Amino acid sequence: MKLKDLGEFDLIKRIAGRVRLSGRVLKGIGDDAAVLEYKKDGYLLFTSDMLVEGRHFHKSSGAYLVGKKSLSVNISDIAAMGGTPFCALISLGAPSSLDVGFVDDLYKGIRAAAKKFNVDLAGGDTVNSEKIVINIALLGEVKKSNLVLRSGAKEGDDIFITGSIGGSSKGGHLDFIPRLKEAGFLAGNFKINSMIDVSDGLLADLGHILKASGKGAFIYEKDIPVSKKAEDFKSAMSEGEDFELVFTLAKNKSAELMKIWPFKTRLSKIGEIQKKGQGFFLIRKDGRKEKPEVKGYAHF
Amino acid sequence: MKLKDLGEFDLIKRIAGRVRLSGRVLKGIGDDAAVLEYKKDGYLLFTSDMLVEGRHFHKSSGAYLVGKKSLSVNISDIAAMGGTPFCALISLGAPSSLDVGFVDDLYKGIRAAAKKFNVDLAGGDTVNSEKIVINIALLGEVKKSNLVLRSGAKEGDDIFITGSIGGSSKGGHLDFIPRLKEAGFLAGNFKINSMIDVSDGLLADLGHILKASGKGAFIYEKDIPVSKKAEDFKSAMSEGEDFELVFTLAKNKSAELMKIWPFKTRLSKIGEIQKKGQGFFLIRKDGRKEKPEVKGYAHF
Repeated sequence: MKLKDLGEFDLIKRIAGRVRLSGRVLKGIGDDAAVLEYKKDGYLLFTSDMLVEGRHFHKSSGAYLVGKKSLSVNISDIAAMGGTPFCALISLGAPSSLDVGFVDDLYKGIRAAAKKFNVDLAGGDTVNSEKIVINIALLGEVKKSNLVLRSGAKEGDDIFITGSIGGSSKGGHLDFIPRLKEAGFLAGNFKINSMIDVSDGLLADLGHILKASGKGAFIYEKDIPVSKKAEDFKSAMSEGEDFELVFTLAKNKSAELMKIWPFKTRLSKIGEIQKKGQGFFLIRKDGRKEKPEVKGYAHF
Repeated sequence: MKLKDLGEFDLIKRIAGRVRLSGRVLKGIGDDAAVLEYKKDGYLLFTSDMLVEGRHFHKSSGAYLVGKKSLSVNISDIAAMGGTPFCALISLGAPSSLDVGFVDDLYKGIRAAAKKFNVDLAGGDTVNSEKIVINIALLGEVKKSNLVLRSGAKEGDDIFITGSIGGSSKGGHLDFIPRLKEAGFLAGNFKINSMIDVSDGLLADLGHILKASGKGAFIYEKDIPVSKKAEDFKSAMSEGEDFELVFTLAKNKSAELMKIWPFKTRLSKIGEIQKKGQGFFLIRKDGRKEKPEVKGYAHF
């Protein structure tokens, strides 16, 4: 069997099934970041993302934006846990024929994101590689009471999303601002029951929440904020790398959240969590109830 | 200018020179691992290494050994700081045509090293890539009093090395045991003034200690333990990836260390730290004093 036949999600399941963890790790594979014992009132968050030339970016994408993205995707993961990032290591694989100027611009982009979000760049690795590969490992921390997992969605929760989805393939995936401020506000002021960032596509990522939480959901086409850049509704639902936050909150807190939401970033209530037996349905504008084809961004 | 014209060490210098760190990072770029504030009596260690197919290994190297190596190189970095590793994230880039069996064996190798050294495998990333790329980020911890940096070598220190050097290109670089036990013993029982693991070659890595410490050194050909697998003395001095420990200790503690050294692993005193003005010299068997050509494993 080849990786393409197995697919990314089954590969991860296969890997996760064979790993045994000590009590030190509260949450391993299967959330936006790993959660580790740390301090009396806080957990350590640990996440890592790899970007590969030709797959996540092209040389023509612009080194600055690629650098900015490479750190921002990790910051988005820490945000989705309710945490704050603080220290990153950068591994860079690059061909020896690469212009030093490209590397300069790449690190300029990384430094820009690091400065904006107070992340220390403490080291990493540089190796020779035919294609450019960037791996950033990022540490964050979160107050124990602010930790948000994928697995906490409750029946009756309202489902929210920040910003709008779709159009990432037209460049949005490179030039986005991770929703760290918004996530910090949410986790600090509300009991957010579950949260994820949209990296595999809204349907797939909400699907991750439902699976981890053992729940179903209804979402409403009329309420889903689709970017003007998106090709159409269907692609917007499945395109990855929007890096918006999807989260769930007890229904009786929704009005308050909408009222005091202090950001320009759009906030939309797009559906409700249902009990597991209800399944996952998309209610179209004409009232039809569809079982969405959950097909996230395929990595293999 | 191309990366190959700049070279790895100058690239790292270039990157490091542009990074500003907060007080939270006690040691950033320029040691085997970054050192971060953590607990009252301990620091957090953070390191990351990238292995690329065709450069650090070949598919024919055997997936199990590649996996074992990918975690072991990081464990060796934590060891060289006097610390203990505890949690890793694995990013894997692989072509969709790759056999799932290869990935299974790769993780089997990673799990074997993780089990041996009590490291939790808490997550990571899986992406599509033409060539196989493995990046492991590893966290460790160290008692504050046990922390060993590259920069602490003192005039009059004896210079030691564990095991023997050379021959790594004949397969030793894949199948080695990181010197974690030995490093733990050293850092826990002696005031080790400086330490590094041999990844760029003995001359280059001792050179890193001398540069970071602002010191010179004499080392003696007759005392340098060369592996039977090495091609010759010269290649053994410059070949990378021996993953032995090079460290320095006050001369008046050397006899005690040699006496109580409890491991089968060979331990050799190979020279002395000198003040900076004395330079870095290799004393050949015939008594000639040579300025060694420090030319580590070139990564670009």
